[in-house]
Amino acid sequence: MADTAAMPPLSLGPASVASGQRHLLGIAGMTAAEIEPFLDLAESYALLSRSRKAPRDRLQGRTLINLFFEDSTRTRTSFELAGKRLGADVINMTVATSSVNKGETLLDTAATLNAMRCDLLVVRHGMSGAPQLLARKVEASVVNAGDGTHEHPTQALLDALTIRRHLGRLSGLEVAICGDVGHSRVARSNIHLLKALGSSVRVVGPPTLVPGALADLGVSVHHDMERGIADTDVVMMLRLQKERMGSGLVPSEREYFRFFGLDQRRLVLARPGALVMHPGPMNRGVEIASAVADSDQSVIQEQVEMGVAVRMAVLDRLSRGGYA
Amino acid sequence: MADTAAMPPLSLGPASVASGQRHLLGIAGMTAAEIEPFLDLAESYALLSRSRKAPRDRLQGRTLINLFFEDSTRTRTSFELAGKRLGADVINMTVATSSVNKGETLLDTAATLNAMRCDLLVVRHGMSGAPQLLARKVEASVVNAGDGTHEHPTQALLDALTIRRHLGRLSGLEVAICGDVGHSRVARSNIHLLKALGSSVRVVGPPTLVPGALADLGVSVHHDMERGIADTDVVMMLRLQKERMGSGLVPSEREYFRFFGLDQRRLVLARPGALVMHPGPMNRGVEIASAVADSDQSVIQEQVEMGVAVRMAVLDRLSRGGYA
Amino acid sequence: MADTAAMPPLSLGPASVASGQRHLLGIAGMTAAEIEPFLDLAESYALLSRSRKAPRDRLQGRTLINLFFEDSTRTRTSFELAGKRLGADVINMTVATSSVNKGETLLDTAATLNAMRCDLLVVRHGMSGAPQLLARKVEASVVNAGDGTHEHPTQALLDALTIRRHLGRLSGLEVAICGDVGHSRVARSNIHLLKALGSSVRVVGPPTLVPGALADLGVSVHHDMERGIADTDVVMMLRLQKERMGSGLVPSEREYFRFFGLDQRRLVLARPGALVMHPGPMNRGVEIASAVADSDQSVIQEQVEMGVAVRMAVLDRLSRGGYA
Repeated sequence: MADTAAMPPLSLGPASVASGQRHLLGIAGMTAAEIEPFLDLAESYALLSRSRKAPRDRLQGRTLINLFFEDSTRTRTSFELAGKRLGADVINMTVATSSVNKGETLLDTAATLNAMRCDLLVVRHGMSGAPQLLARKVEASVVNAGDGTHEHPTQALLDALTIRRHLGRLSGLEVAICGDVGHSRVARSNIHLLKALGSSVRVVGPPTLVPGALADLGVSVHHDMERGIADTDVVMMLRLQKERMGSGLVPSEREYFRFFGLDQRRLVLARPGALVMHPGPMNRGVEIASAVADSDQSVIQEQVEMGVAVRMAVLDRLSRGGYA
Repeated sequence: MADTAAMPPLSLGPASVASGQRHLLGIAGMTAAEIEPFLDLAESYALLSRSRKAPRDRLQGRTLINLFFEDSTRTRTSFELAGKRLGADVINMTVATSSVNKGETLLDTAATLNAMRCDLLVVRHGMSGAPQLLARKVEASVVNAGDGTHEHPTQALLDALTIRRHLGRLSGLEVAICGDVGHSRVARSNIHLLKALGSSVRVVGPPTLVPGALADLGVSVHHDMERGIADTDVVMMLRLQKERMGSGLVPSEREYFRFFGLDQRRLVLARPGALVMHPGPMNRGVEIASAVADSDQSVIQEQVEMGVAVRMAVLDRLSRGGYA
Repeated sequence: MADTAAMPPLSLGPASVASGQRHLLGIAGMTAAEIEPFLDLAESYALLSRSRKAPRDRLQGRTLINLFFEDSTRTRTSFELAGKRLGADVINMTVATSSVNKGETLLDTAATLNAMRCDLLVVRHGMSGAPQLLARKVEASVVNAGDGTHEHPTQALLDALTIRRHLGRLSGLEVAICGDVGHSRVARSNIHLLKALGSSVRVVGPPTLVPGALADLGVSVHHDMERGIADTDVVMMLRLQKERMGSGLVPSEREYFRFFGLDQRRLVLARPGALVMHPGPMNRGVEIASAVADSDQSVIQEQVEMGVAVRMAVLDRLSRGGYA
């Protein structure tokens, strides 16, 4: 079996603990007691956003910098909205990473951000660990908005909030995460969170994308889609990166959908009322059938809404001096 | 006669009516009674902008998203200023359109915008009808900021306001629209508006750019510049797209200017005090002579100013629940 | 000696005086009495930024446009922060310069900005003199954020403030400016400022980058690094543009560092406690050794902080009707 996808589970350590809880760098190492207050506050912010009554003085005078080394319109917009709704001064800095001296440049960037009196720093970077590196050097609270194949903690929080709103709990659930799990920071953060709250996680996909070594994260590994999603409460689909296709890892879109796409025929194998989730943007007809994406069981749109609410909660709590 | 320019007049229907008046998708179908209140409110906002006294609480807590699938610094800036002056949270989303699954992706984008609790959505898209498609799916009020060769309604409103400020009325006027009319959404929106308010419109240019089929819009078609602008109250020049030149549609800049450029010698054929207009940015020496662009008869700069004011009026009225 | 770098000292005249002091176009022609109030106000704003207490009503309702014809994330961000902290509506316009009709287009841009009721216009342009040209046509106060090889006045002000905070004065100092002085607007603005305040300036570098003609600016020219920085109070390093390297002007990074890089061994030749400065971003190991950049003598990070404070002071004073 060719196992080219196998990024070994990163051992950056429980970053959020190591860096003193004023940052949100990853879910690994967080306890249920640390996670749940984010969800509770986000729940309130979701309601306030709906009624256009978010408290604009919460972050007034504070500077939020969206530092994106990888482009992501969705995530950047979600953080920008969250910051603006709470009254922060929001600055977008989209930076093309040069190939040389990355680490060193990152430290100079950190020094610059300190000098500019940045309060909240949202970082997306292609290199696993980059936000941790920055967090050690900046005075701002750092929020990891996705780093390499490592973590994407706000995505896991918004997924958890969405699940809790529908199923009423985050413990004792069976959750299947399906697709390119090996490369996915979304999957990794969700695994840490769901296990910390007492649920079971299965990872499902072809061996090239879901290597057996993922079992080290405390999940069960399935290479058969039907068995993988049978009797689950939540089926979480991941976006298949187009660049993987035809690379030897995945034969073709059509083949992929045939074996690992989520369609109605397969969805009935999950528990009645099982939630269908996707972090977006979707490749309809590749990893998910349109009929499923738009079905009553889909909570994909609500995930986006909870995304803004969770980010408001994260910015708010970190700016108050952190958590735990 | 080669008639390669002839986009048939689009039959998307009177979009603004069809979609319930909480959107501004096009001028087609709007009545004078629906149009004029926008101009009246914009007149007030022009004065308030001059005195830096725009009411910042009008859109406070509202989210305005500038969703541009085509880049346009001018129009984007105009809407951004309009939103910020009224206190909205303004987010710019510039999106490169991919070649595949456009329609489907647009619907997913609509779902995402709903989830983010967008209140006002300003859309520019290369595909005629894209804003209508979005309007059917989003909860926000949609403003069409230019779609393909279809409509650009705020441009027509700002042009109308500029004319009304100078000539005191919008009925009984003779207006010439000159240049690449066949491809122009600016021309199309202006034709609908001017006819709804009781003025006559002539379209002027070479047969390759101004096909005879445009007569279906209720305008007179002229292929001779002198006759086209004779005895008009307003001469509205369009920007000649550089990509048209040397394409067989237009022989060369010099040739074009010789036959269809607006210079002083031609302008005297219009009525005394006739207004010279241009939606910008101008190609000086191609469609318009610098001396004319900078003459006392030119109101080109005022069009830009009225652009911000009209957009403030549109955002304001739509956010109050629509019009008519 | 090949003297390819020699941009003759520009004779655009004392721009700030010529344009009536409501713009900040250059340091040339400014007196100590005109310069010092900017530094005093910036000192206050630095403190207010640290305590997150900048007065958000100072520029409320005012429109600041960042018009950048050259990309510069750092400088744009610094002005954006300065404007937002004082409550202005900030719009970023990044414009790719086309190769033709530049001058003409710039005037049309000016007309557009007037029409949009822009109050403060921050301009960066690759062409020396572009901000002056705009200033003659716009109603806004113009701040030159760097034009060609001409001036970068806010950089000189922030450098001066940083020096004054550490050395207590700006007169009677010996300052060495090292590197690609011939092409540097940073160097030029600093030379004008330091001389106006009564300090002596040396320019240091290879003859290809530091031509003898620079002596016309009233500085001493050194082609030997050791002698150039001996007994100075301040050593200001410039960024070496990568495109200069291997162009015949500079042999290689390694060679350059060997002869003109600032390392610990050379820094001891300056006075005890001499300040090390750099406008950023640095090429560590090319013009400056990391050990020096991070040493106690380095005030590079403070330069960035004073940058935001100086820009707040400039925007504030110009919006109050100018200076002097």
